[in-house]
Amino acid sequence: MKIKVINPNTTLAMTKGIEHAAKSAARPDTEILAVSPKMGPVSIESYYDEYLSIPGVLEEIKKGEDEGVDAFVIACYGDPGLNAAREVTDKPVVGIAEASVYLASMLAARFSIVTVLPRIKTMLEELIDSYGMEKRVLNIRTTPMGVLDFERDPEAGIEMLRKEGKKAVEEDHAEAILLGCAGMAEFADSLEKELGVPVIDGVVAGVKFAEAIVDLGKKTSKLKTYKYPEKKEYIGELKNFGHNEATIK
Amino acid sequence: MKIKVINPNTTLAMTKGIEHAAKSAARPDTEILAVSPKMGPVSIESYYDEYLSIPGVLEEIKKGEDEGVDAFVIACYGDPGLNAAREVTDKPVVGIAEASVYLASMLAARFSIVTVLPRIKTMLEELIDSYGMEKRVLNIRTTPMGVLDFERDPEAGIEMLRKEGKKAVEEDHAEAILLGCAGMAEFADSLEKELGVPVIDGVVAGVKFAEAIVDLGKKTSKLKTYKYPEKKEYIGELKNFGHNEATIK
Amino acid sequence: MKIKVINPNTTLAMTKGIEHAAKSAARPDTEILAVSPKMGPVSIESYYDEYLSIPGVLEEIKKGEDEGVDAFVIACYGDPGLNAAREVTDKPVVGIAEASVYLASMLAARFSIVTVLPRIKTMLEELIDSYGMEKRVLNIRTTPMGVLDFERDPEAGIEMLRKEGKKAVEEDHAEAILLGCAGMAEFADSLEKELGVPVIDGVVAGVKFAEAIVDLGKKTSKLKTYKYPEKKEYIGELKNFGHNEATIK
Amino acid sequence: MKIKVINPNTTLAMTKGIEHAAKSAARPDTEILAVSPKMGPVSIESYYDEYLSIPGVLEEIKKGEDEGVDAFVIACYGDPGLNAAREVTDKPVVGIAEASVYLASMLAARFSIVTVLPRIKTMLEELIDSYGMEKRVLNIRTTPMGVLDFERDPEAGIEMLRKEGKKAVEEDHAEAILLGCAGMAEFADSLEKELGVPVIDGVVAGVKFAEAIVDLGKKTSKLKTYKYPEKKEYIGELKNFGHNEATIK
Amino acid sequence: MKIKVINPNTTLAMTKGIEHAAKSAARPDTEILAVSPKMGPVSIESYYDEYLSIPGVLEEIKKGEDEGVDAFVIACYGDPGLNAAREVTDKPVVGIAEASVYLASMLAARFSIVTVLPRIKTMLEELIDSYGMEKRVLNIRTTPMGVLDFERDPEAGIEMLRKEGKKAVEEDHAEAILLGCAGMAEFADSLEKELGVPVIDGVVAGVKFAEAIVDLGKKTSKLKTYKYPEKKEYIGELKNFGHNEATIK
Amino acid sequence: MKIKVINPNTTLAMTKGIEHAAKSAARPDTEILAVSPKMGPVSIESYYDEYLSIPGVLEEIKKGEDEGVDAFVIACYGDPGLNAAREVTDKPVVGIAEASVYLASMLAARFSIVTVLPRIKTMLEELIDSYGMEKRVLNIRTTPMGVLDFERDPEAGIEMLRKEGKKAVEEDHAEAILLGCAGMAEFADSLEKELGVPVIDGVVAGVKFAEAIVDLGKKTSKLKTYKYPEKKEYIGELKNFGHNEATIK
Repeated sequence: MKIKVINPNTTLAMTKGIEHAAKSAARPDTEILAVSPKMGPVSIESYYDEYLSIPGVLEEIKKGEDEGVDAFVIACYGDPGLNAAREVTDKPVVGIAEASVYLASMLAARFSIVTVLPRIKTMLEELIDSYGMEKRVLNIRTTPMGVLDFERDPEAGIEMLRKEGKKAVEEDHAEAILLGCAGMAEFADSLEKELGVPVIDGVVAGVKFAEAIVDLGKKTSKLKTYKYPEKKEYIGELKNFGHNEATIK
Repeated sequence: MKIKVINPNTTLAMTKGIEHAAKSAARPDTEILAVSPKMGPVSIESYYDEYLSIPGVLEEIKKGEDEGVDAFVIACYGDPGLNAAREVTDKPVVGIAEASVYLASMLAARFSIVTVLPRIKTMLEELIDSYGMEKRVLNIRTTPMGVLDFERDPEAGIEMLRKEGKKAVEEDHAEAILLGCAGMAEFADSLEKELGVPVIDGVVAGVKFAEAIVDLGKKTSKLKTYKYPEKKEYIGELKNFGHNEATIK
Repeated sequence: MKIKVINPNTTLAMTKGIEHAAKSAARPDTEILAVSPKMGPVSIESYYDEYLSIPGVLEEIKKGEDEGVDAFVIACYGDPGLNAAREVTDKPVVGIAEASVYLASMLAARFSIVTVLPRIKTMLEELIDSYGMEKRVLNIRTTPMGVLDFERDPEAGIEMLRKEGKKAVEEDHAEAILLGCAGMAEFADSLEKELGVPVIDGVVAGVKFAEAIVDLGKKTSKLKTYKYPEKKEYIGELKNFGHNEATIK
Repeated sequence: MKIKVINPNTTLAMTKGIEHAAKSAARPDTEILAVSPKMGPVSIESYYDEYLSIPGVLEEIKKGEDEGVDAFVIACYGDPGLNAAREVTDKPVVGIAEASVYLASMLAARFSIVTVLPRIKTMLEELIDSYGMEKRVLNIRTTPMGVLDFERDPEAGIEMLRKEGKKAVEEDHAEAILLGCAGMAEFADSLEKELGVPVIDGVVAGVKFAEAIVDLGKKTSKLKTYKYPEKKEYIGELKNFGHNEATIK
Repeated sequence: MKIKVINPNTTLAMTKGIEHAAKSAARPDTEILAVSPKMGPVSIESYYDEYLSIPGVLEEIKKGEDEGVDAFVIACYGDPGLNAAREVTDKPVVGIAEASVYLASMLAARFSIVTVLPRIKTMLEELIDSYGMEKRVLNIRTTPMGVLDFERDPEAGIEMLRKEGKKAVEEDHAEAILLGCAGMAEFADSLEKELGVPVIDGVVAGVKFAEAIVDLGKKTSKLKTYKYPEKKEYIGELKNFGHNEATIK
Repeated sequence: MKIKVINPNTTLAMTKGIEHAAKSAARPDTEILAVSPKMGPVSIESYYDEYLSIPGVLEEIKKGEDEGVDAFVIACYGDPGLNAAREVTDKPVVGIAEASVYLASMLAARFSIVTVLPRIKTMLEELIDSYGMEKRVLNIRTTPMGVLDFERDPEAGIEMLRKEGKKAVEEDHAEAILLGCAGMAEFADSLEKELGVPVIDGVVAGVKFAEAIVDLGKKTSKLKTYKYPEKKEYIGELKNFGHNEATIK
């Protein structure tokens, strides 16, 4: 099967890292197609960035129909555009935050998230609430490092995650740690060894769940909420998002 | 003061109607600037449309800085882009769904919303939950009419709202009716007379709340969640959303 | 328009302060009528005081009909008698706690309340829950000072608010501070300057929301929960609260 | 022991009925003192009535100290003044709505409430929420009969309860029925036989819980929320509620 | 009346202590029958122990029918098997955790629980949530001591409870302390004196509630959730739990 | 890898059906070991049956250690013993109700469950709440058929599911249907074709999630809630559950 993993930001080095993580988790017969959108921000660290990453994500979802893609993974921990992506295609679409909390719930009773800048804490709280997981998440721990700081200085990154992960275990009594950024995948294994609790990266969780859903032959429900978008005109820079065969079946 | 009312869809006839409603509610000394974005969908009836309306909305928010705008109203009942808009400016930004539920809560103990197509019910449920109003909203009643159907055939529109409004009062025991689409503003007064309960249009509620906040000299908190977006590069059709003086103070 | 601001306690000095705040926020064409009830406690610092302030508040609401009042503001942070007041009149009635949380929600994602004695914390928690705002309120910070202590020693009052406000920002990461007592209105502006986040006083918020609702011509729904009280006899000291034309339309 | 059962309304015939129910449930060595306040409404059917019944209730609580009362039951299904009563005395105070939901929870997984006029539905919903019982209460069924209608026409009363009780069992699948008015106590036994599920009257539940708490020697916590009211002056018709030895220990 | 108090663990010394507490609280005319099951763990400190204590508990419930028991108390703070016990008999069954939170709610606005090992915190959180009491419980404080440690070294036990109880009062601002293990009953009185807030043991609460319910002649609803178990075959060590007259009426 | 699928009831014909479903979904290289416990009920249709199935389930979990099992699936829609199973082993354990709601959440915004007898509705409601999925589940539809009725008369079974499934789609507007019993797996595909929405069987969902977790090399967190059970003695029929090497690592 072919799974398209979309890194919603436009930093290709980060997409490479995500691709690597996805491939390391995928089964041998699963083809991973890892991409960044053709438009949007180099990193996502605010509502502004998140919303503006969505057009590019949706474009990649639409392209997936021609690329013979069987399922999609949206690889940013805010799950940007997830609901719209489910409208645009009937192929399964999995968000990495969503995948990580469901996976964690099957392994640990209570857990904490470690993520990037303080400003995104409210965003993640709202997201966790929308998944019904607020009772299980003990804390959302932010760091002074931005998304690309983890790319630029992985040494500092792992050190920061180690520090906050330890506090999550010792102070929150977190029974698992969730990595709240797609760019942290590479640190999961060594952190898990050091911290002694499951450390969960959403990218690999998302890929495995996507494989599972494709194996089961399940598709997104097209009955009501996730119907294909209504046919209509779009104007300006986004005019290509208007009705055309690829979008609206 | 100057209030910019942004109709997130690109149908100018509807923007006219919204402008008319806004002006009828505004104080004589309030200037209303009603606009549609330069890009995006002609109507918003899905997550897809909603997310894709946001770039255009944010562009209008940014322009507002140069236009001497004192406050913004986002005039679509999904409050698209509201959180990001609050990052982009320190001027108050009010969403019409948000304004309508707060206003309704000061007038009625329990209420129902009447809106457009069934597919948006989940979207509105999630929105109402995020505002903490789930206990007060008895029902979200959808109709088979789309956003522009209310423009095209106002006779049918009022008839549909009358019918669902009556059911809301008689079956839900709704003590107020909220109009779940910016294009329904014109029907509020006659419906209120017929139904005998407050009928609340979010556009006028949003304008009045915006006036109130400007009068108080209050601005959006820039401490954490709504800080200005981080400076960074954007690419592709959205490259203008990258860092520049207007966006990032 | 004429807005009657009712200070539910019987300390006239405090009513003067509330009047001053209300007038400073009201539009030039808004007449503010600030009163204290003719019966009840000199301050409200318990359920006991709160409940016993309500008869006096309701008496003032009823009088308002003859005074040509267009809207009412109940100016104590427990919103005493708010639901009953909405039964007694069809004019809009706004509580200052209610107004402050709705206003704050349009300016800040998360906030804390600073208020008087520790014993009222549970009261405020229950109130915040009833408004659906529990997710947004990070903390309710109490002080060792009672309501009238802030009147008697404003120097100590501002110092206390400054201290707790700072802790709210630094420890709770509150993005706005709500002043949890009508007698704190005078401190809002200087605190806001010092703390760097919106500091919200409910009195001015209540007045502005009342103006907005009157402008819109909206009245309290009389369908069910807020119907006029049933006609019936009252005895004893409260016999005047029984049925008469002014009360029961 | 001596339990004072306070009927918060001033209709003595109803107090007699409540006294009868209380005595029939009390142990032989329990003395029941059933009273109505000296001031307030003849029945409670709105927020207005409820709040205005509280001064009379609190006066009776205070008198209880001199009467050698060991515990109090507030016998109106809105539990008027319950929190303030717990401030005024350290003797246990039990509300009948509270008692009925806790009792019901030990006998049935899910239940419905049958009560008086439609207008009090919101009041009861808020009360049930404050007790954390919203998941267990399937429905609050109102009737077109007021409180005193059940006194005046018990035939019609039982018929109405039978009808709504049956619908509760058949349509709500209620596993117990709670009688949502102190004046319905007399109907409980025959309804229970007819409906085949527990029918719970709060008056007898309240009395038995009060006996249990007194037996255990437990008193209301005076640490924080339920501390004795602060000493202060009251004016007007309520001036006797100000500080004096009986109130403020 | 006869109340059977079932200590779900098989440590008879602990059953003796529970019997002593139950008898000290019971009325003179109440006969207390305190037992341990014939099978299961010597103490309950995990989900594993809890679930494996249930067969023994249910066996004791079933035997109660022949023993002329009027009501049952399940005396372990996880309320093991409570829902199934209510299926097996129509006599009232009360859990001690359940009883303690309802009792506490009538005496204190907010409270904390002090219990045994850290690993049971999640279990208690889920239990408290299922009783709708999550808002009232400020903290669940665990200790490094297991259930039988309190038996073996009561000196250390009271010291530990004293320490955590004090922290509950001073740090949580708990207005009552709930003892989260049936083996702590003996410490309640002296702790209450020291801490100055109600200290609530579930065993005595359960006994008094059971007495109250029997006095009222109420039985468990057999309509739906708590119907007698369906008749069916059981195999293996548990074959005696299959259908027979005693179990299935 | 080897996945042990435990049918918690002792009806081997049903275990065969579950085995068939599990194998049809498993990857070629996944070995499915489907078993029933050696003790317990022939079907699970009450809290009584559910709790009494747990000892047998836990015994099978423990045996799994010697059988070289990599992960477990508990194949009854009440997820009996799931938390204890996670204590007993560090291999992943997945419940089929849990798996079905997480899978459904990735495919549909809102869904309904169709299950067996009415009496289990409360059980499922509590389970769904504990997974945080109450907002997504529109309805739990019960049928007059017991667990084994679906075995005995599959014609009637499919007819019943068809009928309730249709009502779920048409009346609840369910966007997916979850089959609330492990014995319904065989009906999923034909129902999905007829109903036009995803029909989700928990057995196959559980198997695929187990595969995914094993692929990722993740194990259950042993930090706190799911630590191995404390070493201790058990007596009576359950004495083998006491401490021994297999159980307590």
